[in-house]
Amino acid sequence: MGMTMTQKILAKHAGLESVKKDQFIMAKLDMVLGNDITTPVAINEFHKMTDGGVFDKEKIAIVLDHFVPAKDIKSATQAKKCKEFAREYGVKNFFEVGRSGIEHALLPEKGLVKAGDVIIGADSHTCTYGALGAFSTGVGSTDMAAGMATGEAWFKVPGAIKFNLTGKLNQYVTGKDLILHIIGMIGVDGARYKSMEFMGEGASTIEMDDRFSICNMAIEAGAKNGTFPVDDKTRQYMKEHGVSSWEEFYADDDAEYEKVYNIDLSEVKMTVAFPHLPENARTIDEVGNIEIQQVVIGSCTNGRIKDMREAAEILKGKTIAEDLRCIIIPATQEIYKQCVQEGLAEIFIDAGCVFSTPTCGPCLGGYMGILADGERCVSTTNRNFVGRMGHTGSEVYLASPVIAAYSAIAGKIAGPESN
Amino acid sequence: MGMTMTQKILAKHAGLESVKKDQFIMAKLDMVLGNDITTPVAINEFHKMTDGGVFDKEKIAIVLDHFVPAKDIKSATQAKKCKEFAREYGVKNFFEVGRSGIEHALLPEKGLVKAGDVIIGADSHTCTYGALGAFSTGVGSTDMAAGMATGEAWFKVPGAIKFNLTGKLNQYVTGKDLILHIIGMIGVDGARYKSMEFMGEGASTIEMDDRFSICNMAIEAGAKNGTFPVDDKTRQYMKEHGVSSWEEFYADDDAEYEKVYNIDLSEVKMTVAFPHLPENARTIDEVGNIEIQQVVIGSCTNGRIKDMREAAEILKGKTIAEDLRCIIIPATQEIYKQCVQEGLAEIFIDAGCVFSTPTCGPCLGGYMGILADGERCVSTTNRNFVGRMGHTGSEVYLASPVIAAYSAIAGKIAGPESN
Repeated sequence: MGMTMTQKILAKHAGLESVKKDQFIMAKLDMVLGNDITTPVAINEFHKMTDGGVFDKEKIAIVLDHFVPAKDIKSATQAKKCKEFAREYGVKNFFEVGRSGIEHALLPEKGLVKAGDVIIGADSHTCTYGALGAFSTGVGSTDMAAGMATGEAWFKVPGAIKFNLTGKLNQYVTGKDLILHIIGMIGVDGARYKSMEFMGEGASTIEMDDRFSICNMAIEAGAKNGTFPVDDKTRQYMKEHGVSSWEEFYADDDAEYEKVYNIDLSEVKMTVAFPHLPENARTIDEVGNIEIQQVVIGSCTNGRIKDMREAAEILKGKTIAEDLRCIIIPATQEIYKQCVQEGLAEIFIDAGCVFSTPTCGPCLGGYMGILADGERCVSTTNRNFVGRMGHTGSEVYLASPVIAAYSAIAGKIAGPESN
Repeated sequence: MGMTMTQKILAKHAGLESVKKDQFIMAKLDMVLGNDITTPVAINEFHKMTDGGVFDKEKIAIVLDHFVPAKDIKSATQAKKCKEFAREYGVKNFFEVGRSGIEHALLPEKGLVKAGDVIIGADSHTCTYGALGAFSTGVGSTDMAAGMATGEAWFKVPGAIKFNLTGKLNQYVTGKDLILHIIGMIGVDGARYKSMEFMGEGASTIEMDDRFSICNMAIEAGAKNGTFPVDDKTRQYMKEHGVSSWEEFYADDDAEYEKVYNIDLSEVKMTVAFPHLPENARTIDEVGNIEIQQVVIGSCTNGRIKDMREAAEILKGKTIAEDLRCIIIPATQEIYKQCVQEGLAEIFIDAGCVFSTPTCGPCLGGYMGILADGERCVSTTNRNFVGRMGHTGSEVYLASPVIAAYSAIAGKIAGPESN
């Protein structure tokens, strides 16, 4: 029996010829990631584990992104603790506000993650980097600590689900729609502890920024990780972001998949996940009349330049609905700068939008756009659990930047047809 | 005995020929202001006072600026309450995030305050509009409520201190340095319940944005208000901001001043107010070696376009110190847009600065740059009380955008000479 792409990467990093589903392995790590929320906990655990240093000063990334610029004394204290640790232990990839961004957009942009890598991060959306042909997954702070100390982590080798993609996404339909469609189809535990391997000729038609969005939300189907095979788009992306060498792994022809879904991309429709689970997917024509008070465009899911451009194209020359707030947050300083240079920032401001410095803020109810009781938000983020973005009486509707922008103009959930 | 400029404005609005110091009067209001912190309290009081409407739908301004985009559920709830009140009572000048800004920069920009006006605001820095030749002062939420209901407020007519200005500020010396110099000279209660009337040939050499900074901090000397006489700069500013008619008041030649200070502007040096009072003023050459961890450039005091330009000129082509955060917050969406259009936003991003959507956030320890224990911040804001920007073990050094920018590069308090 052959191996999936994920299994091949894991076998290589475990120093084994082959691995199989459910096998326990120790794998070498290429990158260990933490943020301002999870790293302070990991630091405490790290000190319990070792009096020594970190396993590799180049292979740890600490990104301040969740509650910075500090939203309160507690978050300021956490950020300070991260910085002091990074400086004391010589952690090279420490990212302070102003030179940073949302971790899962930042690491690929900085060329710190690449095809063939094994990456763990103390953040559930670490699965994002599967878009590059890496194995990456979210872990707890204790695993992060052990990773920083030893450069290794244990895994139970996951089984896999194959998503065999054909065709091409239509205009206005994005990677976000595809992943919401898939989660709607298989449910929030539909891929529990499995790899979601996106394959087939259709996969190669999907832009890198969409691949990041898709893999980012693999965790929302319960997956251990998500992957795209490396192709020319991946290689070009990595080269453009300073990666000079990497290793490519491809699933064996006889790899075992627990399920195979065939999806014709041209049949995927614009999709919105209704409260309070990402699996509550409805196509845009099934949405009905849902008035909203806020739109958020950003996050590790949809704060990349393609997302910004799509939103700007729709908002250009328009103004958002009078009683609505629209908060647009590019995911990194680099994307922020691109938005300024390409005139997107001006479009957003002219439309009446907030254009904020990069932060995870609103996505997880942190700050910078928290919802009051009874308020509804269309958000390009990744979770719409009860109270996720504020009051337990608020509602979050997950969607693409396209739908988010159209909804901002309409003051209700809307797509291009509705405007 | 003649009247001061302030007394003349008050007499006119009280329908009296003349008023004198310590007289109690009822004055008609041209504008009643509240923000997202103070308006909800005022709304409660308003409902206790009246079952009717507001005195004038055009003469009330409600500006969401302190903790928006909402930093938590409480601030989201407050903002929602403000909006619902504004909509129910037809308050025309309601400013939601994305079309807003920091109140004391926004109102002049929108032409909502003008020379000769009497303005109250439920925010202590309402004194800012004295720069336009208005009487404006901060009040509590109850007075705001009464103002909204009746269009009047009572005042005890203030006495006055005259600041007779001659000469011209040197390069790099700003209005902020002048007001810190003055507060250093007279102390934080040096003008208690008095008008600070800035006059003399030197006054006319001061740019409007500097006049706003100066009058903004009159309250930090305990003053009831601060004023500049109307001149061509004032008239030009008002015309450019959509004001077509106004009334000019000038102090009588025999007006009574309790004190007169003669200040040669050319002798004012760059000034920093040390913790924990604005009166702890030191000139830049007296500062010594003070390492800092954060710089904030913004606020109702120094978030205007002149401030942004001055900071950008210094930061252009430079990067800020490695272990420092620099948070730059233009005071309004309009100023934000100007920063984008003039290339200032790019300069800030290239230098490693956070460039945020307008908010009061960090100034009052709200969010978007709160300090941890032991951290020191050079800030262009207006107060450096214990714990003002975060932990009680942090320190705030008040300064101009010029000093703030040089300090950001140096990682310690610095002026042009030190770099």
